[in-house]
Amino acid sequence: MELVEIRELYRNKESYIGKKIKVGGWVRSIRDSKTFGFVVMNDGTYFETLQIVYHDTLDNFNVISKLNVGSAIIVTGELVATPQAKQPFEIQAEEVMVEGASTADYPLQKKRHTLEYLRTITHLRARTNTFQAVFRVRSLVAYAIHKYFQDRDFVYVHTPIITGSDAEGAGEMFRVTTLDMENLPRTEDGKVDTTQDFFGKETNLTVSGQLNGETYAMAFKNIYTFGPTFRAENSNTTRHAAEFWMIEPEIAFADLKDDMALAEGMLKYIINYVLEHAPEEMKFFNQFIDQGLLERLQIVANSDFGHVTYTQAIELLEKNNDNFDYKVTWGCDLQTEHERYLTEQVFKKPVFVTDYPKDIKAFYMKLNEDNKTVAAMDLLVPGIGEIIGGSQREDDYDKLVKRMEEMDLKKEDYEFYLDLRKYGTARHAGFGLGFERCVMYLTGMGNIRDVVPFPRTVNNCEL
Amino acid sequence: MELVEIRELYRNKESYIGKKIKVGGWVRSIRDSKTFGFVVMNDGTYFETLQIVYHDTLDNFNVISKLNVGSAIIVTGELVATPQAKQPFEIQAEEVMVEGASTADYPLQKKRHTLEYLRTITHLRARTNTFQAVFRVRSLVAYAIHKYFQDRDFVYVHTPIITGSDAEGAGEMFRVTTLDMENLPRTEDGKVDTTQDFFGKETNLTVSGQLNGETYAMAFKNIYTFGPTFRAENSNTTRHAAEFWMIEPEIAFADLKDDMALAEGMLKYIINYVLEHAPEEMKFFNQFIDQGLLERLQIVANSDFGHVTYTQAIELLEKNNDNFDYKVTWGCDLQTEHERYLTEQVFKKPVFVTDYPKDIKAFYMKLNEDNKTVAAMDLLVPGIGEIIGGSQREDDYDKLVKRMEEMDLKKEDYEFYLDLRKYGTARHAGFGLGFERCVMYLTGMGNIRDVVPFPRTVNNCEL
Repeated sequence: MELVEIRELYRNKESYIGKKIKVGGWVRSIRDSKTFGFVVMNDGTYFETLQIVYHDTLDNFNVISKLNVGSAIIVTGELVATPQAKQPFEIQAEEVMVEGASTADYPLQKKRHTLEYLRTITHLRARTNTFQAVFRVRSLVAYAIHKYFQDRDFVYVHTPIITGSDAEGAGEMFRVTTLDMENLPRTEDGKVDTTQDFFGKETNLTVSGQLNGETYAMAFKNIYTFGPTFRAENSNTTRHAAEFWMIEPEIAFADLKDDMALAEGMLKYIINYVLEHAPEEMKFFNQFIDQGLLERLQIVANSDFGHVTYTQAIELLEKNNDNFDYKVTWGCDLQTEHERYLTEQVFKKPVFVTDYPKDIKAFYMKLNEDNKTVAAMDLLVPGIGEIIGGSQREDDYDKLVKRMEEMDLKKEDYEFYLDLRKYGTARHAGFGLGFERCVMYLTGMGNIRDVVPFPRTVNNCEL
Repeated sequence: MELVEIRELYRNKESYIGKKIKVGGWVRSIRDSKTFGFVVMNDGTYFETLQIVYHDTLDNFNVISKLNVGSAIIVTGELVATPQAKQPFEIQAEEVMVEGASTADYPLQKKRHTLEYLRTITHLRARTNTFQAVFRVRSLVAYAIHKYFQDRDFVYVHTPIITGSDAEGAGEMFRVTTLDMENLPRTEDGKVDTTQDFFGKETNLTVSGQLNGETYAMAFKNIYTFGPTFRAENSNTTRHAAEFWMIEPEIAFADLKDDMALAEGMLKYIINYVLEHAPEEMKFFNQFIDQGLLERLQIVANSDFGHVTYTQAIELLEKNNDNFDYKVTWGCDLQTEHERYLTEQVFKKPVFVTDYPKDIKAFYMKLNEDNKTVAAMDLLVPGIGEIIGGSQREDDYDKLVKRMEEMDLKKEDYEFYLDLRKYGTARHAGFGLGFERCVMYLTGMGNIRDVVPFPRTVNNCEL
C-alpha cells in the first residue's frame, strides 16, 4: 500500500474518509492512557498535523506509548471524520510501525525553544512549526518569482558566481583560490604569483550579476537572474549575511517607468502567491511572529504604489527633521528611519523614490537632463524601508565613459560593458531584489539568520 | 504607443494583422534597392525574425539603408499578412527610428561564425541564432525542473555555497578567504592563522548540497536543491566546467525504486516541456546541431526506462569486451563507452543500472543485504551515457558509522549527518542531475562552454 501525504489528505479529504490509508511521518507528541493513546504526527508536506488513535489491541501498544518525540512511524488504519473535534479527521490505527526511533534527549522537545537556541541546530530546526513555515514560504516565494518572469517570457540567466573582474568594491569581496596558502608561489618581485592560480589570475565571488545580465538583456530583451551573491562585510546585524540570493531582472527598450511597473507587478504577484499557496503558514506568522503582517501585505497587494522624486522626498522629510537621528539635506543618502517615515507616515503604502543625486549612486545609472540626478528608483515598503533598488542604465557611450572617468573607473575593465553601447545600444533598465529581505518581509521574521537554511555570517559557517 | 513583442505577434497574429503596431529590436540584415528596402529584425523574445519593408517615402530612407548589422531600431507601421511568402507577415513601415546605431566592425556579421570564435565574445554571442536557442532552452529547462518539483509540493532548499566542511575531496575544492594573501597572518608555529579568516576557519566552495539537503528531507519529506556547485579539477575537456549548476532532490519514506521513478518522471517531464515551449529552437538544433536529436528525445519521452543490476550489466558487457578500450570485470567502474553500449546497443532506450559494488561508491549509500553492493543507481541515456546518479541512503546509524570507519572518515565531521540517523531516521533516497549536462543532452550541443552563459574553466574566467 502506497503512503498518502498529509497535504493530500487535507486537500481531498472526501476521497479518503472512511477508507483504509497508510501514512508515514514524525511524532510531534504522544498522550496515552491505560488502554489507548493519541499520537500527533507531521510528515513535512503540510503545516497541519494528523492525529492517530491507537488501542491496546495492537501488539506493540507499549512500544508506541514509550516512543520519544521525533520518532519516525508508518501508520495504517481508517481515516475517520471527527466533526466534533478541532481537526477534521483522525486515523484509527490498525498498525503502527516504528520506522526509526528517537531518543529521550532529542533536542526538539514539545516546548517552546528560542530562535537563538534553534540557530545552534540548523540541521534539525526545520522540523519545528516556525521553520516549517519559514522554509516552505521561502520555497514558494522562489518559485513565484520564477513563475512571474517565465509567464512573461523572460529568460532566466545564470550569471557567474566566480568572477575575474574585481571592478566594484573589491575590498568587500571573497577571494577564490586553489593556491596552496601554506606555500604560495611568488613572482620575481616577491608578490603572490596569481598566474599560477586556477584561472590564471585573481578571482572573487560575485557581488552582483547585473553587468553580465545587461549583456543578455541586449540579446533577449527581457531577462532575469536568480542566484547567490556575496559580501565580505564585517557587519554583525540582523539584516546582513555574507551569502544571500538576489534577483536581478533587466529589460530592454524600457525606461524607469517600465522598471517600476515591473517591480510593482512582481511584488504584488509574490504576495498573492504566498497568501494563496501557504494560508496556514501565513496565518501562523500573523499570529505568533508579527501581528499585523497579513493586513500590511493586503494593503501592499491592493494599493497603487506611490511615486515621489528624491527632491520632493527631501522636502517632506526636512519638515520632520527634529524627529530624526540623522537630519536630511539634499544630497544625503536616505536612512531606514527616513524611508520608513515616508512609506509609513506620509504615504501609508509602498512608494517609489526616484531621481537620486548622481553622487550617491552607481556609475551605470542614466544621467537625467538636469545633469545632477540619475534615473534611479528605490521601492520603500511599510515595516521595512527599502526592498528594491533599480535604475535605468546609461545607454549613451560618451556619457557613460565620462561618468566612469569622473569616478576613476578603468575603461579597460569595462570593455564588454561599453561594447553594449557601441553595438546597437537601447534604453534599458533593471532592479535588484534581495531574496532574503523579501522573505523576511513576507514572513515577519526579524533576523536574516532565521530565513536562510544554513546562514553564513562573520565567524559562522556551520555545516 | 506601447511596443509589441515579436513572440506576441506570432502567438496572436489575428489580433495584429491589419493594425498599426510598434516594435523594437535589433537589425539582423538589410537589403535595399533604390526606392525601398527590407530589414530583418529580431527582438530576442522569439526565435523567428520579423521582416520590415520601408520605402523612400520615409525621410530617413538613406539612413536606414546604411544601418550596420546589430543596430537597434523602433519601427511603427501596419502588420500585413504575406500568404505567398515564407514568413506569415511583415511590417509596412511608416516610421523607422534609430534607437542605437552599430558599427561596420560589429563582431557578429551576417555570416557563419565558429563556436570557438563566439566563445571569445560571450557578451555578444547570445545575439546569434545558435545561442538564442541554447540560452532560451536553458532557461526553460531550469523552469521545467522547478515546476516539476513544485507541482509535487517539494520544498526548494538553498543549500550553502560557502562551506566549512572540507570532508569530501578537499583537494578539488576552491578555497574562499578574505585574508590578505600578500600578508598572511601566522600562528606561533608558522602556519596560516585561519582563525583570523572571515568565518574563523578554513572555508571552501561547495561540491554538493546533498548532505545538507538530507537534513531538510527529514523535515519536509520531499525537497530539492538547485544551485551552483564547484570542482577545481584541472581537466580541460568538453564536459567539465569549474562552476556548474546541480539539481539534487531528496525524498523520505522512499527507497531506490521511488528514487528511480522520480528521476524517470522528471526527465520525461523536462523533455516534453521544452518540446512544447521551444519547438522552433528544438527544430533548429535538430537541423543544424545534432541530426536525430528530436527522434532520440521522443524515444526517451515515450519509453519505459530499462532496469539492470550492475552485476547483470557486467555480464552483458563482458560478452563485448573485445570491442572496448577498457575491459570490464566485476568491481570496476563503468566508462562512457560501456554506458553507451548498454543504453544504445543492448537496451536501445534509457536504462537504470543499480546495485553497484560498495567499494566504487560513496560512504552514504545504503548497503544491500549481500554486504557487497549498495542501493545506488545511475541513469544512462542514448547519446551521452550517465546523466543522473543517485542512491538510497544508509539510514542505519551503526552501519553508517561502520562504513565511515572503513573509509577513514572522521565521525566528528559528520555529527549533524549522524544525528539524522539518531532522531527518527527514515528510509530516504535522492539523486543528482548536472544541469549543464542535461542542457547539452537536450540541445545536442557538444561543449559545456557553449551551454553556460559565462563559462569558468582552467585559466578561463572572463567577465
